[in-house]
Amino acid sequence: MKLLKSAALILFGFSVNAVAAEDLVKKASDAGLKPIPQNHAELFKLIDNPDNPINKDKLDLGKKLYFDPRLSKSSLISCNTCHNLAMGGVDGIPAAIGHKWQHNPHHLNSPTVYNSVFNVKQFWDGRSPSLEEQATGPIEAGPEMAMPAGLAVERISSIPDYVNSFRRVFPGQQNPVTLENIGKTIGAFERTLVTPSRFDAFMHGDDDALNAKEKEGLKVFIDKGCTSCHNGVGIGGGSLQKFPAVKPYKYASLGDFVGDASGMVKVPLLRNVAETGPYFHNGAVWDLNEAVKIMGETQLGVTLTDQEANSIVAFLDSLTGKKPDVHYPVLPASTAKTPKPQAD
Amino acid sequence: MKLLKSAALILFGFSVNAVAAEDLVKKASDAGLKPIPQNHAELFKLIDNPDNPINKDKLDLGKKLYFDPRLSKSSLISCNTCHNLAMGGVDGIPAAIGHKWQHNPHHLNSPTVYNSVFNVKQFWDGRSPSLEEQATGPIEAGPEMAMPAGLAVERISSIPDYVNSFRRVFPGQQNPVTLENIGKTIGAFERTLVTPSRFDAFMHGDDDALNAKEKEGLKVFIDKGCTSCHNGVGIGGGSLQKFPAVKPYKYASLGDFVGDASGMVKVPLLRNVAETGPYFHNGAVWDLNEAVKIMGETQLGVTLTDQEANSIVAFLDSLTGKKPDVHYPVLPASTAKTPKPQAD
Repeated sequence: MKLLKSAALILFGFSVNAVAAEDLVKKASDAGLKPIPQNHAELFKLIDNPDNPINKDKLDLGKKLYFDPRLSKSSLISCNTCHNLAMGGVDGIPAAIGHKWQHNPHHLNSPTVYNSVFNVKQFWDGRSPSLEEQATGPIEAGPEMAMPAGLAVERISSIPDYVNSFRRVFPGQQNPVTLENIGKTIGAFERTLVTPSRFDAFMHGDDDALNAKEKEGLKVFIDKGCTSCHNGVGIGGGSLQKFPAVKPYKYASLGDFVGDASGMVKVPLLRNVAETGPYFHNGAVWDLNEAVKIMGETQLGVTLTDQEANSIVAFLDSLTGKKPDVHYPVLPASTAKTPKPQAD
Repeated sequence: MKLLKSAALILFGFSVNAVAAEDLVKKASDAGLKPIPQNHAELFKLIDNPDNPINKDKLDLGKKLYFDPRLSKSSLISCNTCHNLAMGGVDGIPAAIGHKWQHNPHHLNSPTVYNSVFNVKQFWDGRSPSLEEQATGPIEAGPEMAMPAGLAVERISSIPDYVNSFRRVFPGQQNPVTLENIGKTIGAFERTLVTPSRFDAFMHGDDDALNAKEKEGLKVFIDKGCTSCHNGVGIGGGSLQKFPAVKPYKYASLGDFVGDASGMVKVPLLRNVAETGPYFHNGAVWDLNEAVKIMGETQLGVTLTDQEANSIVAFLDSLTGKKPDVHYPVLPASTAKTPKPQAD
């Protein structure tokens, strides 16, 4: 039947597919899926934070700090160590490893920084309301960068180039080098890490941006109910949900994370998901196909066939986006006053 | 007297300084100091390796591998971890820390990768004849990246984008993904990490590129005999020497490194030295002024005055060069076949 339809398409020279694509865009839109805006002003409005407006100087400084390992006690670990912009914004290991090779005590997987601006809250338990606030968490966390706030401020304050940048970015402040402002610059930089994908092009009207299998996958993704949680611009990230909801999660015993106070877990973004394995809060699953099937079971109570899971994975692949150009920064040198690295 | 000379210069409108600068360039040149060529063809000839010719595809691949932590057993440590291009090409800690947070067993300091093409041999004991060969050393070394050669090949071979790049860069080879070829691509990339400085501009005839204090420092640097070892395009890196030579090195007990079989130690490059502390093979000294004085004592048997050491440091600051633009790479994603990270 499908073959006949395709043949008809070719023979009669009019686009049944185009109509179908338009329907699919509407279906996706009705299900709550939203593309990243193509219009720059619209996008800027979506990612900017009125309490911490983006500007060029702030982005430059935030990028430097994002890549600066001197924000860790040892001077060896930067934000980019666990949220590597070269690798889908993650570290690619099951659970984070930090200062002195400590494993994350809850066996929590590092979520991607790409498109994290579309998360309604940050961290797996949603305990942080913004990227600006989140950014300071791992800096101070003992098993991550292990950096006392005072030492962070002292390190940065010892480097005149950094101090000048902070003065420029936070004019009128007596002592602009604070952990809060460090978080603001890093948060601003992270807000710009948005990755438009073929899915977005499709939603904006480019029918050919997705192939037939991916379109089929998008349909299945919607029809099975995945979009009840994985929606919005992030294709996830918009809410916390019970996990597991319907049936047990077979790898639940790995780590001791149980969600927030109500047992709720943040729905992860699915953008670039093909690059951000291993999956789930505890990084237990390496295979995306298996992850999709587990989600069907635990969250929707449906057993997906191999074909259904495969087509969903095909759709998810279309969410791999173009990464922003990042010029690797040259960091200002330490000075005689810079507190020394503390590796132990 | 100096003031009078300056006044005379201004009054009579002719350049005494220019003549002096010309003399100083000749003096520096006679002492064996060489600038990085400004002429691109000349520079290319200087950095290229006929056994491993530089080309664009090789550089692209080499840069990716340089930044790829999956070349380490844990998938957490890349070449750039210890030779950070954002931080003068070093890690800024006394001695390298690697896999499972192991400290370098000999307490050896990570040398800068910038301008390392000008080293006659690589490693502190000069045991590697080329950057291409050197690059594979830390990948395999247990306390560094701890990566068995076979596993490195298996990881890279599991990623189709990488395999395609290796085929393109090493045409005609049946199995181009080898540790040797990994080293060749990384070595080629490293050859391009050259940083022209104000010193080079001065040597090429820009009299104003160095200020009076720096020129004075350059004179002292030559007159005291520093150029007997720190010469050539690298301002060092051209030979192995006895260290300490004349008087004991007061921090010799830190670590057990004694040089090569003959007790010889490679003379480090001084380019970007202001950014590459702490100093010496065992990273014992944080203050460049102290390092300069120690070198005077141990190598030349001279006690430098504060003023002499200060002026040498001023000259050394002029060796801080412009870093090449590095676009942070987007690495090809791992696949289902990619051997998993091994953090333990």
